[in-house]
Amino acid sequence: MIDCGEGAQMRLSDFHIPRNKINQLFISHLHGDHIFGLLGLLTSYSLAGRRETFHIYSPPGLEEMVEVSLRVSYSQLSYQIQYHSFDPTEPSLLFETDFLSVHTIPLKHSVPTAGFLFSEKPHLPNFNKEKIEEYNIPVSEIPIIKTGADFITPEGKIVPFEELTFPAPPPRKFAYCSDTVYNPALIDHLTGVDMLYHESTFTEKFRANAEYGMHSTAMDAAKIAQAAGVGMLILGHYSARYPDSVPLLEEARTIFSATYAGQDGMTFSVPFRR
Amino acid sequence: MIDCGEGAQMRLSDFHIPRNKINQLFISHLHGDHIFGLLGLLTSYSLAGRRETFHIYSPPGLEEMVEVSLRVSYSQLSYQIQYHSFDPTEPSLLFETDFLSVHTIPLKHSVPTAGFLFSEKPHLPNFNKEKIEEYNIPVSEIPIIKTGADFITPEGKIVPFEELTFPAPPPRKFAYCSDTVYNPALIDHLTGVDMLYHESTFTEKFRANAEYGMHSTAMDAAKIAQAAGVGMLILGHYSARYPDSVPLLEEARTIFSATYAGQDGMTFSVPFRR
Repeated sequence: MIDCGEGAQMRLSDFHIPRNKINQLFISHLHGDHIFGLLGLLTSYSLAGRRETFHIYSPPGLEEMVEVSLRVSYSQLSYQIQYHSFDPTEPSLLFETDFLSVHTIPLKHSVPTAGFLFSEKPHLPNFNKEKIEEYNIPVSEIPIIKTGADFITPEGKIVPFEELTFPAPPPRKFAYCSDTVYNPALIDHLTGVDMLYHESTFTEKFRANAEYGMHSTAMDAAKIAQAAGVGMLILGHYSARYPDSVPLLEEARTIFSATYAGQDGMTFSVPFRR
Repeated sequence: MIDCGEGAQMRLSDFHIPRNKINQLFISHLHGDHIFGLLGLLTSYSLAGRRETFHIYSPPGLEEMVEVSLRVSYSQLSYQIQYHSFDPTEPSLLFETDFLSVHTIPLKHSVPTAGFLFSEKPHLPNFNKEKIEEYNIPVSEIPIIKTGADFITPEGKIVPFEELTFPAPPPRKFAYCSDTVYNPALIDHLTGVDMLYHESTFTEKFRANAEYGMHSTAMDAAKIAQAAGVGMLILGHYSARYPDSVPLLEEARTIFSATYAGQDGMTFSVPFRR
């Protein structure tokens, strides 16, 4: 889960997202609209009897707020919180499994802020099932072949790995960048990303507001997406002055056509590159 | 405003309640479901440029949570907060204007908790408009007569105050009691109350849960309402196990017929006593 504004736990329920599957929370920065739902989520987990440790990655300071608030509200949690404080000014590896890594991306905002880069680990190739019969390959050999081994028939013939498998699709990357002023230094971090979420608080008409608040316009987001050659761009974090996101989407699409306007409750799947 | 759970500011918007008219917030106790919407409300006020001081009345401890959270979230408010910490174990006068007073009512819960008694000041009597013509009373005299003065005609005849006015309706009282276990000591505080909100977390079937959590059943609430002779009873604070409030309402009405089941967004007006 990324960020936790007020009401986040209600939205998890509204959209039927199984909250017990969430074990890592990545907080980009400590402005209220990104953290004021955290205490409600943490205490609701406890009411539901959660046992698994909950990991919170954030810039420094959050632990003090959470611990004071838990104490003041007489909250005794049924599980542990593990705080992972990071320096948002330097890219770093926060989290890693066999399938995924999460790195920070330094952003430029009015307070210390980081974006997050979610990178899949390389996939194993897909096995060509037609070859099982052709060479009478035992099922137990398949996982070994998928990791790169050739197959040797009982007659001693070597069937090369490449003949038995289809190449895996390249691993996917998703980057989340909120909140940030237009920052070309991002481009290097975002090159080759399949899906980019980039904040777009304002249209060009309110560029001065964007710069004052250290936010981006929709065109700023599109310029970053274009320069980094990302697969698709999702906009979000719209100013309350926009009753709908069409003007932001239209401006961004003049620069980067594969732009989509994020809305509450929408789901996007990170596409595989062709 | 009484209490401020997560999402309270969204509900103020949903129900078109003009939040700028709220200058006093009364917090019954520091459990999260009564305070975790506070930081969002306070910072939204600031985004909207609020200038008026915001007064928060609560048991001790809240100021530390609010101030740490404001600091950690880099929030600089456009207005002042004045904290009024009270001892919830003793009844006390919290707030008073020419029209209204607010007293605490000690409650019995798992943490220090108070209810609140809102008492109107006595109303001025209503002027009998027919008498204006009959005695040719100058309009400037009416406010003076309403405060209890007799009228003296140019001929020197004394028209007594009682002849010129209808008695005012008795001042109204509203009491809010959440969260509390069944507590007959409340009855003295609630006698003569026109409208009582009393928590009713459970039905009788789950009385053990009520006692364990120091909450009330719907019948507990009704017994208090009945013994105190209140005008009407509003239930609320239902356990999440009740998809609708009918079972709670039915149980309460077996004891106290003038019971109503509160729901999100409902409005009740405190009735005048006949």
